[in-house]
Amino acid sequence: MSILDSFPSLEVCLSPSLLHLYDTRGAIIVIIDVFRATSTIAAALHNGAASVVPVASVQDCITLGNSLPNSLTAGERDGQVAPGLQHGNSPLEYPSSFISGKTLVLTTTNGTRLLHMIKGADTIITGSFLNLSETCNFLLQQNKNVILGCAGWKDRFNLEDTLFAGAVVERIKDHFSVLCDSAKGAMHLHNQTDGNYIEFLKDSSHYRRLSAFGLQEEMAYCTTPDLHPVVPILQNGALVVNVS
Amino acid sequence: MSILDSFPSLEVCLSPSLLHLYDTRGAIIVIIDVFRATSTIAAALHNGAASVVPVASVQDCITLGNSLPNSLTAGERDGQVAPGLQHGNSPLEYPSSFISGKTLVLTTTNGTRLLHMIKGADTIITGSFLNLSETCNFLLQQNKNVILGCAGWKDRFNLEDTLFAGAVVERIKDHFSVLCDSAKGAMHLHNQTDGNYIEFLKDSSHYRRLSAFGLQEEMAYCTTPDLHPVVPILQNGALVVNVS
Repeated sequence: MSILDSFPSLEVCLSPSLLHLYDTRGAIIVIIDVFRATSTIAAALHNGAASVVPVASVQDCITLGNSLPNSLTAGERDGQVAPGLQHGNSPLEYPSSFISGKTLVLTTTNGTRLLHMIKGADTIITGSFLNLSETCNFLLQQNKNVILGCAGWKDRFNLEDTLFAGAVVERIKDHFSVLCDSAKGAMHLHNQTDGNYIEFLKDSSHYRRLSAFGLQEEMAYCTTPDLHPVVPILQNGALVVNVS
Repeated sequence: MSILDSFPSLEVCLSPSLLHLYDTRGAIIVIIDVFRATSTIAAALHNGAASVVPVASVQDCITLGNSLPNSLTAGERDGQVAPGLQHGNSPLEYPSSFISGKTLVLTTTNGTRLLHMIKGADTIITGSFLNLSETCNFLLQQNKNVILGCAGWKDRFNLEDTLFAGAVVERIKDHFSVLCDSAKGAMHLHNQTDGNYIEFLKDSSHYRRLSAFGLQEEMAYCTTPDLHPVVPILQNGALVVNVS
């Protein structure tokens, strides 16, 4: 028995299409959707939102928004606020003066889908550069198996989610058994950037896609570590600030 | 229309479980299984094998071996020659004095499965470090869309196949439209190694697994570029040396 066997495992799932290869039972799952769902979730909760409710479709978003008091609906399709919803999927849209005390009902394509696929997890949290250190601290405290789940783009590998997963692996790897090539690959990618994430990502497909909508400033924001130091944790279908 | 639009596309599929996301119709697919199927295929064909017939199961291998004249059966399970077969899955087992003129019927777990999943491709070839330059030259000559298909390990991402894909991307990217984050990620990984592939891979899961069977020398061989400069191409269910 090696010393590694006494550590919990740390794995990275690079796409929702690979999730079936991982044993999520009893594990902590970190949902990662850097551009931009999990960045927006961190910002909204840090700025005082009561909760963020992730839903799969625009229609679910509208229906739930109508039934929940003091709530806002939000979500984008193709870089625009989706028809029927009130707000977009940007961390910059939710300052404290606007979101404090409210419930944000949020529909996103990739992150929400991954979240709804997970079965039997001990805990589900969301991670982004905006809450990088808090995510790492939480995982170090729990001492459980961890799967970092990249939302990707329509089930494809993407660079920004993998880069964030690599940042987490680099920071906490000494306290986990890291036997998964995905985790090592993500860490190697991360360690190539010298921390200048946005420069590295300017060559990525999602950066190009969102740049066409003029969202460069937002993406720079989304890759800035620790602007919103909270741990969004899923409880009864809603993400709230972890207080343990 | 950008200049990129006039180039064929170059994409990397990191796992057979992601293949459904790619349009294989009319494309050249490069099957990659560095440890060790596609390395063995390059070595056997370069050393004079008449062809290599990839089959999915040990039983298929035995059946076909019995019916084909001048053939050998080969394949491993868990690092040992599979019961009922004659030889293993090592490029070092097939020197010219042994394999010349013979047909090698080969069963492997990951690479063969990927090969049989591909539909409608223009051309299927196999790639490995042992035939890296020939693979790149072939792709440059064809001027068609390319998908580099990593066999992975039981559908999981692995470092060695991704590293080879990255080596190909790095060499030929100026002649293709590379819009796929997987291709960029693979290239970034490759460019971290300074060409010392085996050192980089010593931390990989497959290296650990095969080291337990004493296969370090083989893995060093499998990561040496251009020892077997051929292009194995699939024709009528068998891999033969491309002569075009």
